[in-house]
Amino acid sequence: MVITVFKNSLERKDNNNNQFIYKNRGMDLEELLNSSNDYYLDIDKAVIYKKPTPIGVVKVSYQGNHKIINKGYFKEQSTLDYNGLYKGKYIDFEAKVTHNKTSFPLNNIHPHQIAHMKKVIKHGGICFLVIMMNEIVYLLPGVNFVQYVETTTRKSIPYEFIKNNAYEIKYGINPVLDYLSVVEKIYFRGEF
Amino acid sequence: MVITVFKNSLERKDNNNNQFIYKNRGMDLEELLNSSNDYYLDIDKAVIYKKPTPIGVVKVSYQGNHKIINKGYFKEQSTLDYNGLYKGKYIDFEAKVTHNKTSFPLNNIHPHQIAHMKKVIKHGGICFLVIMMNEIVYLLPGVNFVQYVETTTRKSIPYEFIKNNAYEIKYGINPVLDYLSVVEKIYFRGEF
Repeated sequence: MVITVFKNSLERKDNNNNQFIYKNRGMDLEELLNSSNDYYLDIDKAVIYKKPTPIGVVKVSYQGNHKIINKGYFKEQSTLDYNGLYKGKYIDFEAKVTHNKTSFPLNNIHPHQIAHMKKVIKHGGICFLVIMMNEIVYLLPGVNFVQYVETTTRKSIPYEFIKNNAYEIKYGINPVLDYLSVVEKIYFRGEF
Repeated sequence: MVITVFKNSLERKDNNNNQFIYKNRGMDLEELLNSSNDYYLDIDKAVIYKKPTPIGVVKVSYQGNHKIINKGYFKEQSTLDYNGLYKGKYIDFEAKVTHNKTSFPLNNIHPHQIAHMKKVIKHGGICFLVIMMNEIVYLLPGVNFVQYVETTTRKSIPYEFIKNNAYEIKYGINPVLDYLSVVEKIYFRGEF
């Protein structure tokens, strides 16, 4: 599988003979995207970050000047996870993995996230989903996604719809997922 | 002071006679901006959010299906706090309050944040600081800020510089801080 090409996925580990074992720990979709965003930032191609997960802080204490969280919980993001700037345009997207081979369950995307996507599209931003399914990474434009969910009573998107409406993001070395080349083709050159 | 006009700043509190005392707890700059962003979102004028504070999670436990954070700490944001979309343009800014009356201490903005601002400007985004100082809220364009820090050896920005290069954001009711009207004038109409 393609995972073996990722430089950062090699993990060095001492064994008893003081030799090193390089272990491929793999990368999940979030890591692939973060690594790609780091690369885009390094080569000055785009400024795109994953938003931190919102935390509800319940209890804190202090260790000297440091504030420590002693109780907290994870909250739901009201927007999508990633946003930023590419060639003067606002970019906003969410990444999801499904192990379902035949359809993408719609409960992966919350209603307030769909509302957010509609707003972004309306205000002239570029909005999409990155979906990993059947070992392929797809970019599904927000417009197609919103149109689908607004006209269906189904609780999932058939794989066939994704294959027909989304664009494959190929694996590479730098960046590991060059999704901006797909963004470029769809939103800047209108090639698809 | 202007704070008295804010509807949300009224806090109801029972006293011993079962009467209510309305206490004006005031709003800090972050609350004023969040409230303004909520308003912009409601009237469908812009899609701008404060990013969650990044948390380093050290220890978690589970209560049924719920993941609880038992130890965590606050991390520094590598970007600015607020970003989003207005009229097709990418908006990115940071809000800072100083109680210093004569100068704005530069250690308020970290070097990686300055690097981020330069990137945003270079890639065609709108980037600025919102500074509350001497009870006035200013919008200081990123370009002016970056130019200042790159040509100075000082550790702060004199108030005089802010008065000459920043634009006042007036208090109002809806929104409480209409910073987009200032953005509109600077970046869309070139009025200043």
